[in-house]
Amino acid sequence: MLVACTAYQDGRTLGEIALDRIAEYLRLPNCFVWLALKDPAATELEELQRVFDLHPLAVEDAQTGHQRPKIDEYGESLFAVLHIVEPGEAGLQVGEMALFCGRNYVISVRSRAEKGFSEVRMRGEREPELLRQGPGYVLYALIDAVVDRYFPILDTLEDDLDGIERRIFAPEGVPRENIEALYGLKQRLMVMKHAVAPLLEGVSNLSGARVPILCAGIAVYFRDVYDHLLRLNQAVDSIRDTIATAISVNLSMVTLAENENMKRLAAYAALLAVPTMIAGIYGMNFEHMPELKWRYGYAASLLVMAALDVYLYLRFKRVKWL
Amino acid sequence: MLVACTAYQDGRTLGEIALDRIAEYLRLPNCFVWLALKDPAATELEELQRVFDLHPLAVEDAQTGHQRPKIDEYGESLFAVLHIVEPGEAGLQVGEMALFCGRNYVISVRSRAEKGFSEVRMRGEREPELLRQGPGYVLYALIDAVVDRYFPILDTLEDDLDGIERRIFAPEGVPRENIEALYGLKQRLMVMKHAVAPLLEGVSNLSGARVPILCAGIAVYFRDVYDHLLRLNQAVDSIRDTIATAISVNLSMVTLAENENMKRLAAYAALLAVPTMIAGIYGMNFEHMPELKWRYGYAASLLVMAALDVYLYLRFKRVKWL
Amino acid sequence: MLVACTAYQDGRTLGEIALDRIAEYLRLPNCFVWLALKDPAATELEELQRVFDLHPLAVEDAQTGHQRPKIDEYGESLFAVLHIVEPGEAGLQVGEMALFCGRNYVISVRSRAEKGFSEVRMRGEREPELLRQGPGYVLYALIDAVVDRYFPILDTLEDDLDGIERRIFAPEGVPRENIEALYGLKQRLMVMKHAVAPLLEGVSNLSGARVPILCAGIAVYFRDVYDHLLRLNQAVDSIRDTIATAISVNLSMVTLAENENMKRLAAYAALLAVPTMIAGIYGMNFEHMPELKWRYGYAASLLVMAALDVYLYLRFKRVKWL
Amino acid sequence: MLVACTAYQDGRTLGEIALDRIAEYLRLPNCFVWLALKDPAATELEELQRVFDLHPLAVEDAQTGHQRPKIDEYGESLFAVLHIVEPGEAGLQVGEMALFCGRNYVISVRSRAEKGFSEVRMRGEREPELLRQGPGYVLYALIDAVVDRYFPILDTLEDDLDGIERRIFAPEGVPRENIEALYGLKQRLMVMKHAVAPLLEGVSNLSGARVPILCAGIAVYFRDVYDHLLRLNQAVDSIRDTIATAISVNLSMVTLAENENMKRLAAYAALLAVPTMIAGIYGMNFEHMPELKWRYGYAASLLVMAALDVYLYLRFKRVKWL
Amino acid sequence: MLVACTAYQDGRTLGEIALDRIAEYLRLPNCFVWLALKDPAATELEELQRVFDLHPLAVEDAQTGHQRPKIDEYGESLFAVLHIVEPGEAGLQVGEMALFCGRNYVISVRSRAEKGFSEVRMRGEREPELLRQGPGYVLYALIDAVVDRYFPILDTLEDDLDGIERRIFAPEGVPRENIEALYGLKQRLMVMKHAVAPLLEGVSNLSGARVPILCAGIAVYFRDVYDHLLRLNQAVDSIRDTIATAISVNLSMVTLAENENMKRLAAYAALLAVPTMIAGIYGMNFEHMPELKWRYGYAASLLVMAALDVYLYLRFKRVKWL
Repeated sequence: MLVACTAYQDGRTLGEIALDRIAEYLRLPNCFVWLALKDPAATELEELQRVFDLHPLAVEDAQTGHQRPKIDEYGESLFAVLHIVEPGEAGLQVGEMALFCGRNYVISVRSRAEKGFSEVRMRGEREPELLRQGPGYVLYALIDAVVDRYFPILDTLEDDLDGIERRIFAPEGVPRENIEALYGLKQRLMVMKHAVAPLLEGVSNLSGARVPILCAGIAVYFRDVYDHLLRLNQAVDSIRDTIATAISVNLSMVTLAENENMKRLAAYAALLAVPTMIAGIYGMNFEHMPELKWRYGYAASLLVMAALDVYLYLRFKRVKWL
Repeated sequence: MLVACTAYQDGRTLGEIALDRIAEYLRLPNCFVWLALKDPAATELEELQRVFDLHPLAVEDAQTGHQRPKIDEYGESLFAVLHIVEPGEAGLQVGEMALFCGRNYVISVRSRAEKGFSEVRMRGEREPELLRQGPGYVLYALIDAVVDRYFPILDTLEDDLDGIERRIFAPEGVPRENIEALYGLKQRLMVMKHAVAPLLEGVSNLSGARVPILCAGIAVYFRDVYDHLLRLNQAVDSIRDTIATAISVNLSMVTLAENENMKRLAAYAALLAVPTMIAGIYGMNFEHMPELKWRYGYAASLLVMAALDVYLYLRFKRVKWL
Repeated sequence: MLVACTAYQDGRTLGEIALDRIAEYLRLPNCFVWLALKDPAATELEELQRVFDLHPLAVEDAQTGHQRPKIDEYGESLFAVLHIVEPGEAGLQVGEMALFCGRNYVISVRSRAEKGFSEVRMRGEREPELLRQGPGYVLYALIDAVVDRYFPILDTLEDDLDGIERRIFAPEGVPRENIEALYGLKQRLMVMKHAVAPLLEGVSNLSGARVPILCAGIAVYFRDVYDHLLRLNQAVDSIRDTIATAISVNLSMVTLAENENMKRLAAYAALLAVPTMIAGIYGMNFEHMPELKWRYGYAASLLVMAALDVYLYLRFKRVKWL
Repeated sequence: MLVACTAYQDGRTLGEIALDRIAEYLRLPNCFVWLALKDPAATELEELQRVFDLHPLAVEDAQTGHQRPKIDEYGESLFAVLHIVEPGEAGLQVGEMALFCGRNYVISVRSRAEKGFSEVRMRGEREPELLRQGPGYVLYALIDAVVDRYFPILDTLEDDLDGIERRIFAPEGVPRENIEALYGLKQRLMVMKHAVAPLLEGVSNLSGARVPILCAGIAVYFRDVYDHLLRLNQAVDSIRDTIATAISVNLSMVTLAENENMKRLAAYAALLAVPTMIAGIYGMNFEHMPELKWRYGYAASLLVMAALDVYLYLRFKRVKWL
Repeated sequence: MLVACTAYQDGRTLGEIALDRIAEYLRLPNCFVWLALKDPAATELEELQRVFDLHPLAVEDAQTGHQRPKIDEYGESLFAVLHIVEPGEAGLQVGEMALFCGRNYVISVRSRAEKGFSEVRMRGEREPELLRQGPGYVLYALIDAVVDRYFPILDTLEDDLDGIERRIFAPEGVPRENIEALYGLKQRLMVMKHAVAPLLEGVSNLSGARVPILCAGIAVYFRDVYDHLLRLNQAVDSIRDTIATAISVNLSMVTLAENENMKRLAAYAALLAVPTMIAGIYGMNFEHMPELKWRYGYAASLLVMAALDVYLYLRFKRVKWL
């Protein structure tokens, strides 16, 4: 589905244009068009492949989807794939943004993603001096927008991790839930890792020593994106490391809790076993057991039982078994 | 066993040719032949070595089998070994594809693998403009076909992992089976790792800065294969990482289950030990035990036992020990 | 907020100057100014951006804060971000130092950090021959000062780790607290890691083969900072490794303690169960039980019970169960 | 001890020669000698150092032994150290092969190794066209022979690992033995790792971009050895990884077995505790306990005990505790 | 404190010289002096800095101490820091050796280390042809001597590890002590790691492609030191890896021992519980219990108890619970 088709010249927006007038605009000097598509049909992509002479492998990637993020050069044109990560009902939803960028065109293909990128269009109008750099700037602005949306998602993951950490050390925490939460968090983190890590290399190529001609004027801007990706990647690795530690710490806490329960149980068992033993002794049927005849024998035996239990109880309290 | 021997010229299929006419075709301009063999006898390979002047080390590798995947250059010709992974009865079955590729020939040697590669032959007929690139294209198409078959296998592994994950957290899961399943999964994953990882470097050499002359025209296609391999490799590493986490999480769950069982057992033990203790007390043989003479003493003692047990039962319920 | 604005010429301090006379000083030969700001307002930075022609991306980074440490080149000028780590109430407080450095100016922007850097100003006056190198020297002196403040913090972390280690192996240690302390230590360590590791690469660029012109005369001084960072980074990695080992060792100690408790409990249970069994036997109601009629039967049975318990107690003592 | 001293010319074996005629042969064109020594005395090596002008550091390494595998260049001559790994009584026996290789000589020094390398001599006679390449070929053939002997040893390690894996999951496995076996296996694996990994870099230098002149004509043969080493190295890493997994899986199995034992024990304890409680109740001495007077009271009470135990037994069976 | 000050010319030792005649010797052709200091006062170093024109940063490093091992170039002169590791009372004692090396001088500054390096002086006299290479040779000989002293220390660590390993698997081993020993071993290992690993890079620069002019003639000797460092580093990594495995294996052994204790305890508990239950039954007060009246009832009941216990004992023996 075509979302928008806009023409730009010398940093100015010429406005929305009809699809059949694209060829006309492509002939203008310093002019380029930006086509934005959403979940396009196969025929739409084939039509664009014909018009813009896109490389068949790139088109195939855009159509198939489920690619690794990457930025490939086909001669002088660029083809980029990015993951659009959106919070869904069950974990994170991963859509894709495929970007074709040539001398006088940018084609952005958004798939399986809810939210559009109209803010990029508006940003272009606010920064005419950069927009003048041509399609490379639009490429940059779109990648920047996709990457910027990773930050709030990672923040959520960090918050979730903080929450789990608190519950691990809280006395009322439920270890079973903590483990499940950590495991789920790890899986959401992997989604972020797969979105961020492969992109690092691609974007680094756009800001490094051998910059493609399309991005020549704005290499420091790509370095800025690269910087954001480094920051995201570091955060992902850091959370991942913390999750691993948290899992093993949680296991320690479980073993500890087991240990403490065992001690508490043993203490209560002792409180029952001691009177049982004494009662057993006075339950013996020997003929000559003087205490049995004593008037206060029964009361005394109960007192002894109670006294021993109170003594044990206090001792257990002191060594923190109860 | 010779499976097929086909001659190609200028992107057109000249058709199946007899073995003894190969030399004739090799002399034609822009013509090359593709020989496909399956589990060949030593004599067959020696014959081909003589005809195509193959390097003895390459022939030895093809004959011995059980090689690491690799792509070697011998002067201007290439020798590749790939693992063909097929689902077998007990885990994964690993066969091999050895590829000799020279200026005017491709020899593909399939060993210990069920399914043929006739789809590559048909693809060549559908893409004459690429077939015109010569033996390098056939090399590409074969490698691409082998690599494409890794995807469904990896999908199965991912599905198996999902299944195990669900069972780990399910109350009715059997931890012993989970561990065995994770261990088996890891071993199947290693098979994939050994098929994919070494190939990465080899294919990268065919698409990078210093491309062998045979692959010069189709380097972007090899980059596409490289991309698939990167994706596979990342998936393998990701599954591997998840398996390690799953093993440690499973251990946590086992320890937790132990903990919970212990609490349940202790609760039931208490429900038995309290009446036993009371019974013990009234089993004592003191002469002066007023309760024993009381008409409703027995009933009252039973009531006390029951009341204490009901109280304990409810308390244990509340703290989730029962 | 402007903290100070000083002009320097040929290694001499010309003194504090008013903001509106900066332009005048910038025109002097071999003269540069150093502006130090603290938690500046957006308008202050915008004013400086206009005066010194700072790159918008660098200004944006300084304003937004929460950057990864980095040293970026914008043409011939440099932009650096460093983390200022200060001990706070709850863990470590992370502030930031943003540094703009051009041919004849240094702008230092300190954010969310308590302690100033007046010692750098004084150091400059003590080392006129280095100060003569220009803004690059001030850049070095500031980075050096920030990095030097990491050492005492890391020393504290090492001391804390030593303390936890002692408690892990001490008989009166509380494993639950050890785990929490190790976990907290790890998190403070990550703060240091994030301050140190990214800076390594940046500073290495200022001391390596391709030194920016601003730092040309003092590359060995940046190598010295690089060396400090390497040392810090190694210490961080080493502590981190030790924490991981300590967590697993602590788990072993917990399991061991569990084991020992179990043995102690079992020993005490045996000391109660043996008399209970004997008492049970003499509580049986058989008519013909000769011992029951024996005058000293009761005393003898108690003696047997006591003797068995003493024997068991000594045995348990010998095998260290008690 | 001198094992053999052979002269070669133009790919032909001139035969065994006496030590004092070496100088004579060294003067012949295209002629080289191969001296094979076994556990040589210090004086023998000093003599050779004088005759062949060997570098003192290389001679020292050969004499001292216990080196890391390596391939060093001393000017135009090469010095290689390899580990010869042989199965011994207690684990693996590590001997050494030191190789000096110059323009017209190869000296192979075998230390602490049982089996000789006469097969290399015979291989040389079978491959005259390669033998013509000179001492570099003998160097290759010896390295190839040493490396080829690693394969059966690694196969044994893999078989041992398979055996342990089966025992880990077998119900009759003894976890204590599994752990010891895994630990021992790991140590044997380290021996292989130390033999293989350092050699990778050395051999890679003989087959890569900057090949020493001695090995110029046979670089693809060294690449073949490199390939074998890569395969071995990968196998070593893979076994190592599997051992780590197996250790943690074994721990899980131990914890699981503990869990299962605990449940079985608890079930049996219940089967004893229930009758004990009931017996305790009817052992109370209340005057008014109607059941006690009932003719079939005793039989009924035994029946109730048996019935409860049968019921419990079946329930425990159903939940797989027994 | 000045230990020695020696002058050398053309590979010959000119002998000890007075400090105030140094300048005189420095003017002689092919002559250099070697000053050896031990724990020098600040003033001594300042004096030397003035005489030999040492770089202030290098002098500061030598004075402050606690540096990472490193080899820095200051123009044509070299500055090296090495760790001198000596076995102390509590773990390992780390001292430092700072080396200044210029065209005609070597200054060695030993700090916090007991044992001197007079053997280096004697070695120089034994190897005049190397000594002729100038200060670079003395630098080499000192580094070589420091590195050679790491070997016996690492051997001790390996022996300690062997001892712990034996105790882990020995039935009489004390797991608590094993853990502490492993932890202590790991910490001593880290000391070695910090001494060896950073030096690797530094020494590699003295033997690689771009050798400083001071070391030009003896690069293969530095390669030899590099080799030793590689060997040490590998041994350190290998011990470290083994310690990690040993810790987890020890935990498995502890869990196993717990498991076995539990089974033994349960068996003994059963041996007590069965007679207790039977005694409980015959302690019931039913009027009609025929066995009670039987003459041999008591004896029979005791026999049944004993028989059951013997039977259970044998069964427990057979399944190895006792």
